[in-house]
Amino acid sequence: NEACGGQISSAMPAACAVEMVHTYSLIHDDLPAMDDDDLRRGRATNHVVHGEAMAILAGDALLTLAFQLLSQEIHPAHSAVTCCRVLSEAAGACALVGGQVDDLYHEKITRSDTEDSEALVRDLEAIHNRKTGGLMRASLLLGGIVAGGGDDELERLGRYGSALGLLFQITDDLLDEHGDESQMGKRVRKDSDRGKLTYPGVLGIAESKRRAVALAELAMSEARTFKPAGEKLESLAEFVLSRSR
Amino acid sequence: NEACGGQISSAMPAACAVEMVHTYSLIHDDLPAMDDDDLRRGRATNHVVHGEAMAILAGDALLTLAFQLLSQEIHPAHSAVTCCRVLSEAAGACALVGGQVDDLYHEKITRSDTEDSEALVRDLEAIHNRKTGGLMRASLLLGGIVAGGGDDELERLGRYGSALGLLFQITDDLLDEHGDESQMGKRVRKDSDRGKLTYPGVLGIAESKRRAVALAELAMSEARTFKPAGEKLESLAEFVLSRSR
Repeated sequence: NEACGGQISSAMPAACAVEMVHTYSLIHDDLPAMDDDDLRRGRATNHVVHGEAMAILAGDALLTLAFQLLSQEIHPAHSAVTCCRVLSEAAGACALVGGQVDDLYHEKITRSDTEDSEALVRDLEAIHNRKTGGLMRASLLLGGIVAGGGDDELERLGRYGSALGLLFQITDDLLDEHGDESQMGKRVRKDSDRGKLTYPGVLGIAESKRRAVALAELAMSEARTFKPAGEKLESLAEFVLSRSR
Repeated sequence: NEACGGQISSAMPAACAVEMVHTYSLIHDDLPAMDDDDLRRGRATNHVVHGEAMAILAGDALLTLAFQLLSQEIHPAHSAVTCCRVLSEAAGACALVGGQVDDLYHEKITRSDTEDSEALVRDLEAIHNRKTGGLMRASLLLGGIVAGGGDDELERLGRYGSALGLLFQITDDLLDEHGDESQMGKRVRKDSDRGKLTYPGVLGIAESKRRAVALAELAMSEARTFKPAGEKLESLAEFVLSRSR
């Protein structure tokens, strides 16, 4: 943002809107009817503390508030509309929600049902491009939009965001296999136990790590096209590659 | 819309966006963790057919799609932003979602817990102003916005919408006491049975009917300030007052 004119006043509502959509998606994904998780960020999940009804409503309120914030606080109007469009596309039935549908659907298929690991890899990438990748991409795009970035800058930010999102998901799956629950702040080894598609499960650990390195390099090469602010994006990709929690 | 310049192309996405928010709210309200309803519009509710996870996600997708539609299809940008703002305010934590929270909370209080019927009436009106009233008001405002209405026109449309919303809720509560399940397309006598605040429960049937007539008259007087299109709004209020399902 600093490098693009310092429009901090618009960057904060845009950042908050992305965070609200992210948090809503976690609250709803953790519900008993979905992933049924009781631990998130080291604390009891929303529905465990407040009950299912309030957790559903808290998610609904956060999702709505994201668009309220963008439409109230982003100026000029065409930037606000573009932010609403990009975030709703990333959060919608063709992206975040659709990815979660596929994610739940795949729980019901055990790996032995199919021998076609190429197809599994495609499914896995499609799910995470729509879930994690889509929202990370949107967060980068919203930052670019409120800073007045041009089409070319937005495209490069979008590619960086998509790569960072997939990278995050691979390292998340790897940490889910080997990570420490108290460090992660959520249950581990749950995804693979319940038959969810995971990168180590489909590709093995070595190939998953290789893909993570390749995605980090892709993200870093996009980051380097932004000078000097790209350094921060570069170190963020490095951090996601090497994180232990 | 006809009376305000005939911008049909923008009216349709605005109308669809309101309908999406309405449908999302019904799908989530019907969930087992909320009102636990199995019949809606004469058919099995979404979670009965597709399961809870898909019903939660269908609601999430519809809510998101409402804002996607507004931001993609409404022009110019300032109209789109105003539509997003008005709809998100009507759907958010201070309105639709907040009303549902209070609605659920009041189920837990039996009427005998309090003797203060004035306070109950205020609670009841506050709930329905935020739930039904807010969304009806938003639907009128969105129509006014895409038709290029001025502040004064929007204010009158808003007052009409709020009155129509409360009127709808009172007749809904009355039909819930006396209506026919097959005609209503949803379970009746459920709200009062589970201790929900209802107009007949708090005010009695005669006073509820008197309030319905007064709200219909208020709505019709606002409608008459729009010529000639106000006639349709007037007969809509009349219809809501006299409906049998």
